[in-house]
Amino acid sequence: MDQAIKTYGSIEKLPEIGKNEVLFLCVIASTLTSRRPGLTGAGATPELTDYTPAADVELIVNGEPTCLPEIPQTIVDGAIAPTPAVITKAALELADIPFLVADAGAAVKPKLPYIKINDKPGSDITTGQAVSNPEFIFQQGKIMGKLLSRLTHHIFIGESTPAGTTTALGVLQALGYDAWGKVSGSTPENPHHLKQELVERGLKAAGIHGQKLQDPFQAVQAVGDPMIPAVAGIAAGSKVPVTLAGGTQMTAVCALLKAVDPEFLFDDLTIATTSFVARDETSDINYLTGQIDDITIFAVDPFFEKSENDGLKNYLNGSVKEGVGAGGAMLAALLRGLPMNDVRARIEKLCGEIF
Amino acid sequence: MDQAIKTYGSIEKLPEIGKNEVLFLCVIASTLTSRRPGLTGAGATPELTDYTPAADVELIVNGEPTCLPEIPQTIVDGAIAPTPAVITKAALELADIPFLVADAGAAVKPKLPYIKINDKPGSDITTGQAVSNPEFIFQQGKIMGKLLSRLTHHIFIGESTPAGTTTALGVLQALGYDAWGKVSGSTPENPHHLKQELVERGLKAAGIHGQKLQDPFQAVQAVGDPMIPAVAGIAAGSKVPVTLAGGTQMTAVCALLKAVDPEFLFDDLTIATTSFVARDETSDINYLTGQIDDITIFAVDPFFEKSENDGLKNYLNGSVKEGVGAGGAMLAALLRGLPMNDVRARIEKLCGEIF
Repeated sequence: MDQAIKTYGSIEKLPEIGKNEVLFLCVIASTLTSRRPGLTGAGATPELTDYTPAADVELIVNGEPTCLPEIPQTIVDGAIAPTPAVITKAALELADIPFLVADAGAAVKPKLPYIKINDKPGSDITTGQAVSNPEFIFQQGKIMGKLLSRLTHHIFIGESTPAGTTTALGVLQALGYDAWGKVSGSTPENPHHLKQELVERGLKAAGIHGQKLQDPFQAVQAVGDPMIPAVAGIAAGSKVPVTLAGGTQMTAVCALLKAVDPEFLFDDLTIATTSFVARDETSDINYLTGQIDDITIFAVDPFFEKSENDGLKNYLNGSVKEGVGAGGAMLAALLRGLPMNDVRARIEKLCGEIF
Repeated sequence: MDQAIKTYGSIEKLPEIGKNEVLFLCVIASTLTSRRPGLTGAGATPELTDYTPAADVELIVNGEPTCLPEIPQTIVDGAIAPTPAVITKAALELADIPFLVADAGAAVKPKLPYIKINDKPGSDITTGQAVSNPEFIFQQGKIMGKLLSRLTHHIFIGESTPAGTTTALGVLQALGYDAWGKVSGSTPENPHHLKQELVERGLKAAGIHGQKLQDPFQAVQAVGDPMIPAVAGIAAGSKVPVTLAGGTQMTAVCALLKAVDPEFLFDDLTIATTSFVARDETSDINYLTGQIDDITIFAVDPFFEKSENDGLKNYLNGSVKEGVGAGGAMLAALLRGLPMNDVRARIEKLCGEIF
């Protein structure tokens, strides 16, 4: 096993990936929750977080964002870290892995062809009415998962959803899990207090605080985001193995899958993330999955300490950590036989070209 | 060669299709031209033609149309013929061929996940401003063709575009071809006079009658439909062989491809249609392609004279003829080794179930 890959969970073996056998899908979505100051680093200002998902996938497909004059970056205390989309782009291009975009409800739509699963973005979760049609989104995702799984042997699913760890926290709590203080975040200092406050206000507004839900989609409807039911639906509909390429947000996807179908088999589903999430002292992805089921997690370390790029080095201080399926994209590249040094060199080259 | 397949053109060999090697894509679009009475049979009334593309693909993916209470049928002088979507659905399901939908600008959007290439439907061609952004649609199609061709070995592209032979006539004439009276149609009596009148009015309104166009996209912009640049773009972007599954409308796609790139190689591009189009005495697909390039046409005969279904028998009288890639879907099934008798039996079974 490549030393860059660490495994957490019950299954020891890594998925096998041959040439032309993988499809990487990035699901984009927004909620108005990301407009709250201090919650997310996925955009230079809270207002600009509306553009981040579209700009991320435009960067990957078109080589530059067309909806924004600038590439998304995370800026905390003057330290700038590039969007994880550069990691995803570099890894997928080097490994020659096909990439598709699906819209689950992004506020700004990308200027490229994409799969439309749902149009409407989510609201602020404090309304307790964050997503108006989660079951429809899940069913659309399920149809798409079934269709796409006929075109590949393995689907990797990344996401770009600003403030997505807050909405993931909401769904996990609403489904009865102990998730306070356990979700990750895109800034070095994880604003757990603010996240908990927003989720509690949302749960209270929805009138579902503390009790067992009759319908699991109520959790998403009240305090979730459109990405969660879309990705859960794709995973539920797929006939081939699925790797959820993301951090603690993907545990909310697993929680929804389990709630919709208590017999759901996690044998053919894994989570792939970065070492920045796996080692994050402000969150605990293993504690979250441990409550849900026997779910294997792969964590990939790009060894950015070996890099001379200051933006990438800021990942080591807790900026960004994960997103746009960066960890999963690197895993796919490693499983295609590429050494991490080559993947990192490509990421550095891309950073040099576009920033 | 299966006796149901006839070949017209220079290439004698049929494409080879293995299991899991084909993707069938249906591109849907509308123009207000289809609201003109007497022009098309693709809908019970001119107004209902807005729903036909969405209902067709909903029937194929979901088993029933959700946007309409009824399955689209062609009714001429009391004779009812089912939408060709039933042929496509039966052939693809029997042959286990994956199916995706792309929207190039349908008036009514289907209730299923689809690839969004373009949103806005076209106007009535007599305005001389039928499609507002044909080059953008072509470029989006090109990106999608490149992406999709990484997931399969061969792309079949069908279409559902009511009144599409009229807009195809417009594009062919605007690009300098002799197409008057040569395009096919969905009714036994082909309203050539009306089609020519509408195209001439459109060309006149656009001020491009008779002269050589500086920009080939002007032809689509003036008197075309959004399907034509979308399908041409996908074909231009694809790195794998493409079969255009349709009748004379696909000759307009070929004409646009040739106009955009005079060096375009038609070696890896073929047209697959039905025997109803190939033998149609009111149109001449071979005459049209012959003016453009060395383009092979496959025509598939489902032998509906052997059927006891009255709706299918109406195809023998010139109703419907083709659409939703019916001819190409049958070709793909035959190339996967299925006998035409089995394909026809499945079509009849499906007609029995849904009508």
